[in-house]
Amino acid sequence: MTLLDYNALEDIALGATVLGTGGGGDPTLGKLMAQQAVAKHGPVQLLPLDEVPDDGWIIPTAMMGAPTVLVEKIPSGTEVLDAYRMLEQRLQCRAVATVSAEAGGVNSMIPIVVAATLDVPLVDADGMGRAFPEIQMVTPTLHGVSATPMAIADEKGNQVLLETPDNFWTERLARTTTIQMGCSACVALYAMQGATAKRALIPGTISLAREIGHRLLASRGEKRDPIDAIASLLHGRRLCEGKITDVRRRTERGFARGEVDIAGTGRDAGARGKLAFQNENLVFWHKGHPEVTVPDLITIVDEQTGLPITTEGLKYGLRVVVLGFPCHPQWRTPEGLKLVGPRYFGYDIEYAPLRSK
Amino acid sequence: MTLLDYNALEDIALGATVLGTGGGGDPTLGKLMAQQAVAKHGPVQLLPLDEVPDDGWIIPTAMMGAPTVLVEKIPSGTEVLDAYRMLEQRLQCRAVATVSAEAGGVNSMIPIVVAATLDVPLVDADGMGRAFPEIQMVTPTLHGVSATPMAIADEKGNQVLLETPDNFWTERLARTTTIQMGCSACVALYAMQGATAKRALIPGTISLAREIGHRLLASRGEKRDPIDAIASLLHGRRLCEGKITDVRRRTERGFARGEVDIAGTGRDAGARGKLAFQNENLVFWHKGHPEVTVPDLITIVDEQTGLPITTEGLKYGLRVVVLGFPCHPQWRTPEGLKLVGPRYFGYDIEYAPLRSK
Repeated sequence: MTLLDYNALEDIALGATVLGTGGGGDPTLGKLMAQQAVAKHGPVQLLPLDEVPDDGWIIPTAMMGAPTVLVEKIPSGTEVLDAYRMLEQRLQCRAVATVSAEAGGVNSMIPIVVAATLDVPLVDADGMGRAFPEIQMVTPTLHGVSATPMAIADEKGNQVLLETPDNFWTERLARTTTIQMGCSACVALYAMQGATAKRALIPGTISLAREIGHRLLASRGEKRDPIDAIASLLHGRRLCEGKITDVRRRTERGFARGEVDIAGTGRDAGARGKLAFQNENLVFWHKGHPEVTVPDLITIVDEQTGLPITTEGLKYGLRVVVLGFPCHPQWRTPEGLKLVGPRYFGYDIEYAPLRSK
Repeated sequence: MTLLDYNALEDIALGATVLGTGGGGDPTLGKLMAQQAVAKHGPVQLLPLDEVPDDGWIIPTAMMGAPTVLVEKIPSGTEVLDAYRMLEQRLQCRAVATVSAEAGGVNSMIPIVVAATLDVPLVDADGMGRAFPEIQMVTPTLHGVSATPMAIADEKGNQVLLETPDNFWTERLARTTTIQMGCSACVALYAMQGATAKRALIPGTISLAREIGHRLLASRGEKRDPIDAIASLLHGRRLCEGKITDVRRRTERGFARGEVDIAGTGRDAGARGKLAFQNENLVFWHKGHPEVTVPDLITIVDEQTGLPITTEGLKYGLRVVVLGFPCHPQWRTPEGLKLVGPRYFGYDIEYAPLRSK
């Protein structure tokens, strides 16, 4: 049985931030919340996806909103428990575990807060294998799993329970509610039984995040290149290195949106890169051409340390490396690309799978 | 025992529209919905407020949104049952009756649809003695009654359950949800037990609406002046008669807002009137001075027939009479004026009670 203790959380938060492709929240904030819960309630059991009982309910938990807001509007830690319990009450069940809806610095940690506090296991899986900005953008949608009943709770005591005819309506109603709550809220949604979860979720995400974080931090002592270490682990590659020369950001319809300009340095000297994001990094253009798009992963890391930089941390002058990683095969199907491909986000670009060098 | 049959609904819808002060929905639409329900399921029992059992739950039902939208986006009639049942389920009770949250052409009728279809009585009362545009603007708020749990349902199958720390948060979250649902939705809220209802609601509203409607329609045959008939019944007076010369309307933040210019005719010849509305009529200026404001009632009626004109029916060229009626005394208290006085709506006008001539 794998137990996630205080120290494991550092690795997971960091690794999940790499998978979070700029979104999913700040790892420092997430880590502190989860470490506090584990220090108080003890370590959390990591349950392999294939060991979830077929008839047991699992309830994914997450924060929703604009990461730029989340950094300053920190959850109290009880909202997410409110959301989880509200869903249990609605389903008239006692869930056997919680799980991450997405990988990310905060959204890998929120379920750990729940697991530690309520003494339930955390399933080693997630619903994306990365982070995406909208509710319907999870592999369970591809498997016909309903996002609702969905519970939304804020720190002011507001609680909302949604039932919708499809997951796009869930996104629409939950987004507007989250905006009214101050652009961030805690949610519980996509409750499903083990038999469904085994088909619909992506297994091993938490273990993978832990390994990514471990390699990043270990490479420091070993004087290995941390960036190469994670690129090879994730079968990805360096897209560009350079200096951020401009960041244009706006909080729009409840999302952190923007573009980043990068002037190439080193072997990319003279080349220009551009990145577009909506909470998560969506498209990276290099030398004027779209080089990588969603659903493949685009992650910005610090040139020296290899540490991932979330969209809210992007700023002028940072020396960065842009990395690309292939997404989970489920996202490369026609249904997957319809849900999270570049055209959904408004870019008239044909998806081309990331070349692995 | 008073039974409301098919024919009674015509009077009630019309009279409630007079009390609706321009809002609360179109009487034709409301009447057709309720008549259809009564034709199918039989007449509805009208239960005096003081006969509601002290420990019995009553669930007010209504439509929420912009009346301008409602005219074209007609409810299917099942949404409001969904909302009612959702609240029963949340409260783990079987309600003993429904009731109107506000007087108005549609919102006096929606509870009759519920009462007829589910075979429960309609309480002879409402929460305003008129219509107001926002959720917290009911006498139950003055008595500390929570609007939540509140259920919201639309014709697409979306259902939302709200729990909020106060009735202003209910308004905020419900409004934004209603906007997403297409600017109109059916709601159930302010569930309360009989003992509370007897303090918090305004008794006799449905009977009063019926009497107003009856006098309006009866005066036709009797060749009496229908306008004088209702002005005396409601202890109000004629404020101005004239021709509508301009209507400026906009659907804004989920409300139908606007202003109307009136050029005086007859004994008001040469004088100019102006009316501001937000779903309901809020302020009437005559000869440049505010003459009547919320919470007193301002109702526009057709000069010839005395039939009330809702805000969505206001248009250039109509010959109208503007009527003013005193509001229920609860609204004239400092707490009442804080909740629904002219300053709440953004008008820097001191409330002065309507002079009864």
